[in-house]
Amino acid sequence: MNADGKETEKTRIKPRILSGFRDFRPEVMIPRERMIETAKQVYRAYGFAPIDTPTLEYLDILLGKGGDESDKQMYRFTDNGGREVGMRFDLTVPLARFVAQHSNDLGLPFKRYHIALVWRGERQQFGRYREFMQCDFDCIGSLHVSSDIETALVIDDLLHSLGFDRFTIRLNSRQILNGILETVGLLDKSVAVLRSLDKLGKVDRTAVIEEMEEKAGASRTEAENILKLADLNGSNQQILRDLEPMVRGNEVGETGLARLHAIVDGFEAAGANGARIKIDVSIARGLAYYTGAVFETVLDDLPGIGSVCSGGRYDDLAGVYTKQELPGIGASLGLDRLLAAQEKLGMIPEVQTPAQIFIPYFDKTGLHQYLKLAGDLRRAGLRVEVYPEAKKLGQQLKYADRRGFVVAIIQGRDEFEQGVCQVKDLRSGDQNEVVTDDLQVLVQHLNDLLSVE
Amino acid sequence: MNADGKETEKTRIKPRILSGFRDFRPEVMIPRERMIETAKQVYRAYGFAPIDTPTLEYLDILLGKGGDESDKQMYRFTDNGGREVGMRFDLTVPLARFVAQHSNDLGLPFKRYHIALVWRGERQQFGRYREFMQCDFDCIGSLHVSSDIETALVIDDLLHSLGFDRFTIRLNSRQILNGILETVGLLDKSVAVLRSLDKLGKVDRTAVIEEMEEKAGASRTEAENILKLADLNGSNQQILRDLEPMVRGNEVGETGLARLHAIVDGFEAAGANGARIKIDVSIARGLAYYTGAVFETVLDDLPGIGSVCSGGRYDDLAGVYTKQELPGIGASLGLDRLLAAQEKLGMIPEVQTPAQIFIPYFDKTGLHQYLKLAGDLRRAGLRVEVYPEAKKLGQQLKYADRRGFVVAIIQGRDEFEQGVCQVKDLRSGDQNEVVTDDLQVLVQHLNDLLSVE
Repeated sequence: MNADGKETEKTRIKPRILSGFRDFRPEVMIPRERMIETAKQVYRAYGFAPIDTPTLEYLDILLGKGGDESDKQMYRFTDNGGREVGMRFDLTVPLARFVAQHSNDLGLPFKRYHIALVWRGERQQFGRYREFMQCDFDCIGSLHVSSDIETALVIDDLLHSLGFDRFTIRLNSRQILNGILETVGLLDKSVAVLRSLDKLGKVDRTAVIEEMEEKAGASRTEAENILKLADLNGSNQQILRDLEPMVRGNEVGETGLARLHAIVDGFEAAGANGARIKIDVSIARGLAYYTGAVFETVLDDLPGIGSVCSGGRYDDLAGVYTKQELPGIGASLGLDRLLAAQEKLGMIPEVQTPAQIFIPYFDKTGLHQYLKLAGDLRRAGLRVEVYPEAKKLGQQLKYADRRGFVVAIIQGRDEFEQGVCQVKDLRSGDQNEVVTDDLQVLVQHLNDLLSVE
Repeated sequence: MNADGKETEKTRIKPRILSGFRDFRPEVMIPRERMIETAKQVYRAYGFAPIDTPTLEYLDILLGKGGDESDKQMYRFTDNGGREVGMRFDLTVPLARFVAQHSNDLGLPFKRYHIALVWRGERQQFGRYREFMQCDFDCIGSLHVSSDIETALVIDDLLHSLGFDRFTIRLNSRQILNGILETVGLLDKSVAVLRSLDKLGKVDRTAVIEEMEEKAGASRTEAENILKLADLNGSNQQILRDLEPMVRGNEVGETGLARLHAIVDGFEAAGANGARIKIDVSIARGLAYYTGAVFETVLDDLPGIGSVCSGGRYDDLAGVYTKQELPGIGASLGLDRLLAAQEKLGMIPEVQTPAQIFIPYFDKTGLHQYLKLAGDLRRAGLRVEVYPEAKKLGQQLKYADRRGFVVAIIQGRDEFEQGVCQVKDLRSGDQNEVVTDDLQVLVQHLNDLLSVE
C-alpha cells in the first residue's frame, strides 16, 4: 500500500460494537423474528393486546424500582434539556408507570404484551448481554385463579407453538410457604428461609437446617418441617394431598393449596397436556417478588439452560405511582435462551434469506421478463428474489446456494421462445422444465416443491 | 383523606413520560404492529433479509456522520465503563458500520431491511418525536438499474399492501441535474443551486434566478436553463423526450436519463401500474445525499403530509469505515406519517383487543367448560378471550363492547345442559343459538360472522 493509502487508512474509523451488545445478521435475525412473531400470535389468541413505552424514562420513575443492582447497572445520563433520564432495565416498571398513568382510560382487566429491548450494564459474562429483548405478558386487575390457569395455558401454548414438545412448567405458590412459616411464627424471616432453602442440592441437608436455625431463628423441628417441602414428590395430586396437613388451619396456606389445585385441574380441563405442568415446591427463585402462583419452565432435553419462561402473581403492580391497588399475574418468555435451545436441538434451518425462490438474471435482454415473472409469483404469495446483475449463471447459483434459496427458476433465450422455464431444486439439484404461459401450473409446481421438507 | 393517606400520597412518584416520547396504547399499537408486519412481508417477498444492530454505538462511529444537526441532537453519554457512547439517530450509519465490519461474511449483493427505533433530541414541534421507528430497506453492492427498478416496485408494493390505492411515486435523478450543471460549468455549485431551486413555489421565479446568480455565480441564461427543469411536465415519456436535448453530449446526464427511462419502463413491465410512478425533476430534497435515482412518495388524497416513502441511490455507503466501495440503493417507509394518514382516511378500525371472540364467565361453576371451549376455538385458529371473573353478564358485555370484540359466545346452565351456546354479534346485537357438540359447525358459524365487515 502506498503512502496515500495509508493516509486514508489512518482517517478511517474501525467498525466495531460495544462489548455486551450484538449485531444480528440475517441467519440469526430470521429465526429471532419468527420466534417473536409466534409469541405475538399466541398472546393475541388469548386477547393480550400490544403496548409500547419509551426507551428513556425520567430517572425517578426507574430508580429504586429494581433494587440496588438495577440502579447500579442502569444506563443513565442528563439529556440535552438537563433532565435526568435512564434507559429502562425491564418492562415491568414501565408497565406499572403506564397503567398508573392511563388507568382511567384503560379499563380492567387489562391484558397486555410488550416485546421490547431493555438495557443493563452488567459485568460481562457468557450468555449475558447488556442489551436484550424481553417478551412479557400480564393480566392486570383480577385476583381470580382463572388468570393463573390462563398464564399456565399461555406458557404451554408458547412453547408448543415454538416447536418444543418436551418441556415442564414448574408450578409453586408463595402462599404455601408463607402459610407454613406463619404457622411456625417465622413469616417475618421468609427471605432468610428462602435463601437457605434455595441452597438445597448445593450444600447438604444438615448445613441448610443449621443455617435456618442461625439466620432465621428457626428451631430444629421447624427447620426440618420446612425442609419436608423439598422432599415432596410424586404426581401433582399426590403432592397436593401431602401438602394438605402441612397447611391445615392456616388461611393463607389453605388458599394457596386450593389455588394450586385449581390451576392444575383447570390446565388439564382446558385441553392442555396435564403431564406438562408439575407442582414443585422447591422453586424458591423469584418467590421474594411474587405473592401467589409462581411459574418456571424447563426444557426436558436442556434443563441446564434454566427456565425459559418464568412469572407469577403479584398483589400490587404500581403502588409507587398510584393509590389504586392493581393485582396481576404474568410471565416473560426467554427469547435468547429459547433461540440457543432451538439451535442446540437443530431446530433452526441455516438460511440467510427470507425468500424461497431465486431467479438468476441470465439473459442480458431478459430483465423485463424476469421482473414480470417475479411479480406474478409474488402476487401468488411466493417470495422471490431476482439477481440484480447479468453475471455468470454459475456465480449467481453459488450466491443462491449460500443464501439458502430452495428453488431457482432459470430462463434463457431458448426458454423465453418456448414459453418454459427450468425449475431447479437447489437442495437436490433436480431440474424440471415447466411451462410459463399458465401461471397456475408453475405456482402449483413451486408450492409442491416448497412443501417438501 | 386522613393524614396517613396524605403521607403515602407525598411519597408517590407522579407517573409521566418525557416530552417527545410516546406511550402506545393498544388502540394505536395494534395498527402499528399490523403496518410493521405488512412492511416485513413485502420486504421478505423481494428477498430483503432482517438485521438488527445495537441501540448504543461507540460515539466515534456516530459522530459527524449525519452532519452538525445530528451531532447536536444526539443522545450521548459516558457509560459506566467510561466509554463515550451515543444512541443511534438513524439506521443508515449502523448499516454502514455493520456492512464494513462483516463484509467478509455477508457477500454481495446484500439486501437487508431494518425496522428499529432511533433517537433525536429535536426541538419540540408538532408531529415530530424524539424517539421514532425507522423502517428501511437497502440493496448494497450493485450499480445495476435493476435495483433501482426494484426499489420503485417495493415502494409500490408497500403502499398497495398497506391499503393505499391513490399514491404517486415521484422519481428524479441526481445525475440529470449534475449533467446539466456540468455542461454550464456549475457542478461545484450544485448545493447552492439546489437550495435555490428548492425555493421555487415559495418565492417567485425571478427571485430564484437572482439567487442563483448571486449564490452560485450562474449567468442569467444558465439560471433560466436550470429553471426549465422545473417547467417540465406531461407524461413520463414526454418529460424523458424533453430532457434529452438538455443533457445531450454530457455523459453523466445521458446516463441519468437512460436510467430514468429504464426505471419507468421496468416498473411497468414488471406488472406495476405505470400511472403510479411520475418523473418529477423538481424534487430537490435529499438530492445532496444521493448520487443517482431519488424517490419520494405522496398520497394523492393527503399531499400535505409530505413524502411517506423516500430514498435513492448512493455511490459509497461505508467509506468512513472501509476502503471497499459499496454502492447501494434503498428507501425508508414513514410509519408515523402513514399511520396518521390511515387514521385520517378512516382506514383504522377502533379496537383495543387483537382477539375477536369474547366468552363471558357467566356460570360460576362453568370455568372448565369456558376454558375448554376457548382452547378448542384457538386450536381452530380463532382468537378468544375468556373474562377472568364471574361478574354480572351486563358488565362483562360492556367490557367486550368497549374493547371491540366482534362476537360473544354465551353459555349458562341451560346451554350447558342442552349442548348449545348463544352466539351474539356485538356489532348488530343479533343472537343465534348454535350447537357445541360439533365444533366444526360452531367454527364455521364464527368464521362466517367474522368475515362480514
